[in-house]
Amino acid sequence: MTTNFAEYFLLKKGLTFLNHGSFGSCPKPVFQTYQNWQLRLEEQPVAFLDQHRDLIDNLSKPRQALGELFKTSPQNLVRVTNATTGLNAIARSIPLADGDEILTTDHEYAAVENTWEFLVRKAGAKIVRAQVTLPLVSKEQFFDDLVSHMNERTKILLLSHITSPTALHFPIKQVIDEARKRGIITVIDGAHAPGLIKLDLDALGADFYVGNCHKWLLAPKGAGFLWAHPSWQQKLEPLVISHGWGVKERKKDRTSFLDSFEIQGTQDPSAWLTVPAAIEFRKTHNWDQVSRACNLLAQETAQRISKITGLAPLSSPEFCAPQMIAMPMPKTDYRALKDYLLNECNIEMPVFDWQGRTIVRLSVAAYNSQSDMDHLVKSVAEYFA
Amino acid sequence: MTTNFAEYFLLKKGLTFLNHGSFGSCPKPVFQTYQNWQLRLEEQPVAFLDQHRDLIDNLSKPRQALGELFKTSPQNLVRVTNATTGLNAIARSIPLADGDEILTTDHEYAAVENTWEFLVRKAGAKIVRAQVTLPLVSKEQFFDDLVSHMNERTKILLLSHITSPTALHFPIKQVIDEARKRGIITVIDGAHAPGLIKLDLDALGADFYVGNCHKWLLAPKGAGFLWAHPSWQQKLEPLVISHGWGVKERKKDRTSFLDSFEIQGTQDPSAWLTVPAAIEFRKTHNWDQVSRACNLLAQETAQRISKITGLAPLSSPEFCAPQMIAMPMPKTDYRALKDYLLNECNIEMPVFDWQGRTIVRLSVAAYNSQSDMDHLVKSVAEYFA
Repeated sequence: MTTNFAEYFLLKKGLTFLNHGSFGSCPKPVFQTYQNWQLRLEEQPVAFLDQHRDLIDNLSKPRQALGELFKTSPQNLVRVTNATTGLNAIARSIPLADGDEILTTDHEYAAVENTWEFLVRKAGAKIVRAQVTLPLVSKEQFFDDLVSHMNERTKILLLSHITSPTALHFPIKQVIDEARKRGIITVIDGAHAPGLIKLDLDALGADFYVGNCHKWLLAPKGAGFLWAHPSWQQKLEPLVISHGWGVKERKKDRTSFLDSFEIQGTQDPSAWLTVPAAIEFRKTHNWDQVSRACNLLAQETAQRISKITGLAPLSSPEFCAPQMIAMPMPKTDYRALKDYLLNECNIEMPVFDWQGRTIVRLSVAAYNSQSDMDHLVKSVAEYFA
Repeated sequence: MTTNFAEYFLLKKGLTFLNHGSFGSCPKPVFQTYQNWQLRLEEQPVAFLDQHRDLIDNLSKPRQALGELFKTSPQNLVRVTNATTGLNAIARSIPLADGDEILTTDHEYAAVENTWEFLVRKAGAKIVRAQVTLPLVSKEQFFDDLVSHMNERTKILLLSHITSPTALHFPIKQVIDEARKRGIITVIDGAHAPGLIKLDLDALGADFYVGNCHKWLLAPKGAGFLWAHPSWQQKLEPLVISHGWGVKERKKDRTSFLDSFEIQGTQDPSAWLTVPAAIEFRKTHNWDQVSRACNLLAQETAQRISKITGLAPLSSPEFCAPQMIAMPMPKTDYRALKDYLLNECNIEMPVFDWQGRTIVRLSVAAYNSQSDMDHLVKSVAEYFA
């Protein structure tokens, strides 16, 4: 990378930060836009926060920017604080009955599993976790892994687009198509996807899709979206019922979906309002190219680590998320390895146990350098020497 | 007021801002603390947002500060984005059955009415709106207004502590006591109360209390709290089920109430973290005295307006909220009056129809001056001349 992007970010110096994937990092000019929105709010809070004055127009611009980027109508998506919040609204809006099954995989995010666990217990429904065959090397195998568990009780298919513990890019399109054919509701957890992979939300054909803008799209923390197929929008219930619910006379282009999700009591919407600035920053700095370079560096680093550990990756490159790779480690106490990396090597990255394997998840973002990678490879080599 | 507090606030110059009550306004040093928290978050997002590292300690400090200020244990309250969000969590956690009644008043906040309307419709329950006798001049009358509607179907009593459309300070203590005696669940909407009136949450004896810190407590937007009686804390369900739900091994002093409400996916908690700085700012600047001066100015201004309109206030001074007064106006098109005040007089304040009366709600905050009041009085006089 020719530009020194590290200077654009606020991360503290001296730390080797290899965990963009968890919470992202916001470039300085985008962060400045964020704090400027907050100042504007404080200058005239009533004009800013009143839905009959500036609020709706301001909230609409990020919808338009995301609609354009992800090839869907801005009418199909609303802001949520984060993907988890969006998934909770979806989960609470689908009535579950005794015996219903939620089909998902063994790679899902723990918080999201909690959400569904909470609801299936109340309803007498259950979660069915399909085991995804590893290494993930074939679309057909993935399809079979899921479809073999579909039956007349399957009410919902819940799939990560990019998995959190294993950083796999699931080939979800065919499985969604099959689910729709069978009348199964499809809910896609795209927490990690926006800004990391190309998204074509209409063409994907799911019932619901949620994503975070504060990870790879570079927005400030607390900016996510919920996309809902038009056939669902009237049925979707926000978690917070407030002024936007049950409005009798709506303005042109306004729907209950937009009003009820966009207006949920006094809060600072600045993170959401900054999403267009984050998208603009990426365009200005040729982010597709930056991402490709990061991806190459990630792949190369994972190969170097793989040589040290002697362990193969969890998938073929085709199914590995760009810029984010889960690297299996030799059997070891994951807490000790995490402590070593953080406290002795000053490397911030997730180290955890996943199904009895120790995983180190590497994220490579614009601010990371070849020397960050060399430091990681050397540190891992020394640990297992 | 001897200090020129206008200089401490970010409100734009030239506007006569008489609507602190809707969204509050945050003093510059407090706002600086807010934006500094956000910078700290960006310096090391993982350490900041990880519940096993800095997050829980940081989130606990505002609980401690609010617990001390409002005479309750910090274990009894959790952050919520705003009072509406807190009320939604409470409303969704109380199972309603066919025929149940929610007893409330005809002075409640429209968004909160939407929340309960949404839930009673699903359950076949209903809302009973007691008409509060006006002018409100007697505790006993208020008690009778409410208690006369209590019966064996009354499941929940929902009361504003300070009412939003009418700025009345309801004498709720005796009504709460009576409701508890009868086994009715008491939910208090204290959206406007924190920082405006003294709060003694344990002694009040409700089942639930919600409040905003971004109004009269001077915190940034999006900082509220939910207080729950210890007997309810295990039964309360957060709107967003995430990592904090169903934790098996909890740390000392941690409860499911705290964990499940405090951890709800990635977001910027800086508004909440700034609450102690807001409380500290008030202490440093002798805020009790500032508030008393504001209250006197508000009362005096309301009397001057009352002389112009010939209309009596909605209550005796005892039941009028400090610093906030709803002033009835002669019959007029409220929209025209609002436009006149905002566009011709540059005065920002709420003007609306409430039960066929035109109401102008005056808020007097530290940044308001005698000349703001004179400008208002003159403007109203000219309108009705």
